[in-house]
Amino acid sequence: MDIEVINNIKSLGIDMINEAGSGHPGIVLSAAPIVYSIYSNHLNINPSDKNWFNRDRFIMSAGHGSALLYATLFMSGYHLTLDDLKSFRHINSKTPGHPEINVTPEVECSTGPLGQGLATAVGIALGEKILSNKFKYSSKSLFNFKTYVLVGDGDLMEGISYEACSLAGTWNLNNLIILYDSNDMSLDGSTSYTFKEDVIKRFKSFGFKTYKVKNGNDLRKLNFVINLAKRSNKPVFIEIKTKLGYGSILENTNKVHGCPLTSDDINQLKIKLNIPNEPFYVNEKAKSYMQNKIANRVNSIYINSNNAYKEYVDKVLNGNKELINYLFNSNIKRDIINYNWQFTNKQALRDTNQYILKTIINNVPNFIGGSSDVGTSTKTYIPELGDINCNSMDGANIWFGVREHSMGAILNGLALLNFRPFGSTFLAFSDYLKPSIRMSALMNLPVTYIFTHDSINIGSDGPTHQPIEQLASLRSIPNLNVFRPCDAKELIGCYQIILNSNNPSCLVLSRGEVNLLESSSVSGTLKGGYTILPEQGKLRGIIVTTGSDVEIVINIVNEISNDIRVVSMPCREIFDMQDDNYKNSILPKGVKIVVVESGSKYGLSGITTMDNIISIDSFGKSGTKDEVLDYMNFSYEKIKERIIKLFM
Amino acid sequence: MDIEVINNIKSLGIDMINEAGSGHPGIVLSAAPIVYSIYSNHLNINPSDKNWFNRDRFIMSAGHGSALLYATLFMSGYHLTLDDLKSFRHINSKTPGHPEINVTPEVECSTGPLGQGLATAVGIALGEKILSNKFKYSSKSLFNFKTYVLVGDGDLMEGISYEACSLAGTWNLNNLIILYDSNDMSLDGSTSYTFKEDVIKRFKSFGFKTYKVKNGNDLRKLNFVINLAKRSNKPVFIEIKTKLGYGSILENTNKVHGCPLTSDDINQLKIKLNIPNEPFYVNEKAKSYMQNKIANRVNSIYINSNNAYKEYVDKVLNGNKELINYLFNSNIKRDIINYNWQFTNKQALRDTNQYILKTIINNVPNFIGGSSDVGTSTKTYIPELGDINCNSMDGANIWFGVREHSMGAILNGLALLNFRPFGSTFLAFSDYLKPSIRMSALMNLPVTYIFTHDSINIGSDGPTHQPIEQLASLRSIPNLNVFRPCDAKELIGCYQIILNSNNPSCLVLSRGEVNLLESSSVSGTLKGGYTILPEQGKLRGIIVTTGSDVEIVINIVNEISNDIRVVSMPCREIFDMQDDNYKNSILPKGVKIVVVESGSKYGLSGITTMDNIISIDSFGKSGTKDEVLDYMNFSYEKIKERIIKLFM
Repeated sequence: MDIEVINNIKSLGIDMINEAGSGHPGIVLSAAPIVYSIYSNHLNINPSDKNWFNRDRFIMSAGHGSALLYATLFMSGYHLTLDDLKSFRHINSKTPGHPEINVTPEVECSTGPLGQGLATAVGIALGEKILSNKFKYSSKSLFNFKTYVLVGDGDLMEGISYEACSLAGTWNLNNLIILYDSNDMSLDGSTSYTFKEDVIKRFKSFGFKTYKVKNGNDLRKLNFVINLAKRSNKPVFIEIKTKLGYGSILENTNKVHGCPLTSDDINQLKIKLNIPNEPFYVNEKAKSYMQNKIANRVNSIYINSNNAYKEYVDKVLNGNKELINYLFNSNIKRDIINYNWQFTNKQALRDTNQYILKTIINNVPNFIGGSSDVGTSTKTYIPELGDINCNSMDGANIWFGVREHSMGAILNGLALLNFRPFGSTFLAFSDYLKPSIRMSALMNLPVTYIFTHDSINIGSDGPTHQPIEQLASLRSIPNLNVFRPCDAKELIGCYQIILNSNNPSCLVLSRGEVNLLESSSVSGTLKGGYTILPEQGKLRGIIVTTGSDVEIVINIVNEISNDIRVVSMPCREIFDMQDDNYKNSILPKGVKIVVVESGSKYGLSGITTMDNIISIDSFGKSGTKDEVLDYMNFSYEKIKERIIKLFM
Repeated sequence: MDIEVINNIKSLGIDMINEAGSGHPGIVLSAAPIVYSIYSNHLNINPSDKNWFNRDRFIMSAGHGSALLYATLFMSGYHLTLDDLKSFRHINSKTPGHPEINVTPEVECSTGPLGQGLATAVGIALGEKILSNKFKYSSKSLFNFKTYVLVGDGDLMEGISYEACSLAGTWNLNNLIILYDSNDMSLDGSTSYTFKEDVIKRFKSFGFKTYKVKNGNDLRKLNFVINLAKRSNKPVFIEIKTKLGYGSILENTNKVHGCPLTSDDINQLKIKLNIPNEPFYVNEKAKSYMQNKIANRVNSIYINSNNAYKEYVDKVLNGNKELINYLFNSNIKRDIINYNWQFTNKQALRDTNQYILKTIINNVPNFIGGSSDVGTSTKTYIPELGDINCNSMDGANIWFGVREHSMGAILNGLALLNFRPFGSTFLAFSDYLKPSIRMSALMNLPVTYIFTHDSINIGSDGPTHQPIEQLASLRSIPNLNVFRPCDAKELIGCYQIILNSNNPSCLVLSRGEVNLLESSSVSGTLKGGYTILPEQGKLRGIIVTTGSDVEIVINIVNEISNDIRVVSMPCREIFDMQDDNYKNSILPKGVKIVVVESGSKYGLSGITTMDNIISIDSFGKSGTKDEVLDYMNFSYEKIKERIIKLFM
């Protein structure tokens, strides 16, 4: 009966692609036996309780295999209907072109951009280790789930996959099982032109236990190896040889990767599969067989897991569910404004941030994070709070090494387990993890990216380390709040928003010292932008500015004029969300507006027209801070000249 | 005497950092023997002819080792003076904080962002293979140089390094020698927390020949192994165990990575090094020794190489230097406007591009490129022109596999050898190679990035594949031209600019069909923006738009009004460079301007204010093209409504 289910999964997947007129049949036909085996024989899941906290996770990193995933979920008894399958790749369906968590609740991770799913799976596996270490009781743990991830050649060619797997090996995540659909074919053709590495040896070098299954249709062998994998004391990599588009006329060619099969091909295929030639045929017996197989295997595990939760709350937490339920509810409100903060008058914002961060971590139990090997410089490393690394899963400082890109994806994985994770590097290197930041925003995950060294004023490290276009680039990402506070008070306001939002944030901080400004305001920060220096008398014009530029602009305006208003805009996205009344009160129509920001003109453009923007639009320069600011026309004197020219 | 030179290189490097007040002493003290050995014993270079076409290349991928590099160049007899060393990290010096090709002509590649240098070195090694294959004569070749690259732990942790080295193995680049300064320490601390992989095994898995030198101060062993490496039939990886900050009081700690040494530390170090305690002491005998060593070893090789060039030009090219000199002169002018192009009235721009690309490649011998495994979809794969892959170095299509990031860096490497390379992927995935695009722009290299699938109208693949913020993100990068042509004529204009510029370009193309517009113009394109539909009578307003949006806007305006001007802006950067007269004639002051672009509002912002921008500022959606455009308020009808609302 296993074969009948597999064949039905294949025929449904092919029908979905055919009906949609687009999709990826190759992987449906190559990997159906693998995905079926995992769901039916291995995943501890409960299709009627998709939010079970200790369920095993399955990530389809090769997200173009969405049809295979949806067909499998359908046959497993999840709440996807046949109509859902029929509307594959149509607007507002539960079955989009690539898996999306907010569209299909049964999907564990949005995937599509290759390598991201695998790296996110590493984050989930790391999260499980942290949780299982934290919620231990009487030699058991509430958490002991596995993370399975299906990858293709493309996933394994992406740099992020190496980074993440090197970390999985370093952390010895033996709860991670990677299944490699190895079919020697990618979009453009044979992988013999592009991918000749010894993949097994590569994973051995990372510290994985490796297996090879020579025939991906050999279910017995597959299950045997996965059973071994579940007992491994190391992370596991299984190479499974398959044939792309197995059974299609185009089997083993790149032509079967990304186009619907012809009707002739479907006809001959369905004969091979012994499936009646009708679209969306469902073998109900096979479906029941699969559902029962899962239920029979998992029922008692599920019940025990829920009982263990109750016991844990009762006995360990003395009935106080709050101490664990933050893990299942991301909407808990946090007020950090009224904490008794002690700020010094002059401090580098990265140092202020370290102080605030420590307090937050001490008070928000799921707030953890780390850095891509610049934690001592971004000042996000907090020695008192212990480490997450190969020796310890009990701490708040994750050691990512110099791996920005996978750091981002791993943070996403942690957020999928309801952590509120943060990661840090220099603003100039935010580029390295951009694709993962995009996934945070797409999945609506509360990840906080902390980017320090936010301007050319870092000086001597030169243009490779001096951000120019990064603020603009980050602000242009949908569903992402980009904060650039000017001092400690604004930073508190930023964190207040961050801790009470579910979408991701970038917190952009200066390396250098800033003064605590008399007129800066937490409440103004909560509105994204506010008047930090009001004009006297009739308003001549407004200067909008952010971060460490604010103090400079205030000083210049105080020196040259008393009828210019200065607006600090620590978060443009939040400001844009305010009502028109408020926005017009801060930036009234018809008044000349000038923007000052040490970065690309694109960052705050649209607030005013191009000729009123004082920005930096060429690459920086190596030199002392003062040399660089002067050379780039961004010293106090040069900015003053430019402001005078625009206003006088 | 070798030790004397090494010690002098160390003391100069330490003095430079001390004088500058910032820099990275750790690598100076760990890797000086390695860099000295390469320059003195192995690199075929001529310090008085730094442009020698067949010189060996040395890339300091660990760019924070700049002081070590400059001190070595000084001792080798290049035209760096002691004053240059003294002005390390000062503005307008020849010795910036990280190596920069346009600042220090002796530097082969700008480095700093980790991993980029290594991946660029792979591109240089690939380029050498292509050149040596192309310029063969009587069983010899004009090109037979090696590429050496020094990497640290950080380089090897970055994803791009795995991607690039997997390609180096796949391509079997036995002209590449990687030297790994393996000191078990990175910025934040011991690599035992972050980097436990078996690096030798990893490089074996890529197909490298590997060696390990247990003591990086053992010059005899180092030279022995490098000599073996030069004769290898595979790419070579040499792990060299060193001690970070060797000789400093802080030896073997992360504290010696990135801060100047204390004066006490310098004092004790100079005693150990047997260097007089005076800043910038130069042992002239040692300097002469090193220069003579290089000269004696290389002189005859240099003379033979230049003779071979002359012989090749005379005998193979019959005296026609033009057939090879394009390799040494990037300023050759190309006119492709007047070629006899045959365009069809309706065609997908990616198809038009394929046709143009083929002609360009046939006419511009150093124009080659490839794709990160989507060449059949971006249509940049040109079957007739042969392949560059593991089987062939004779063709124009480079097979990069699914490795966007290293593709960018490898293109940079090819451009450093005066190729005019191109690479392609989908616009949404341009994020993956952003850090390499930034390096193209920083190094001012004529790389062309071709990004297709440029809008949400790709439909069913959904939000992960639909670009939103990418145009804005790319436009905000300094020194990069971003082109989004509306049809074949504009595309010709774009290529005319691209082929005659030395800075990098992004060419953003639609997947879908576009009509050849009657009023589109090559000459207008050369100005970046122009009136594609003039108003009749008094001008009521202007709509600025780009790419496949142009035709839609023209049709809408033709339908609703005759006093609105439509401006097509295929390249905003070029438009911004025009004189005020021209810009004012196209966009006169005081006239209402509306922008329409299927992407983030940031992309064309500043041309008008935010409330006049018709853009897409949330993530896309999976569905058919029409479903998606309607859902995202970007269908013909919805755009029409929005335009009417803004103008009427």
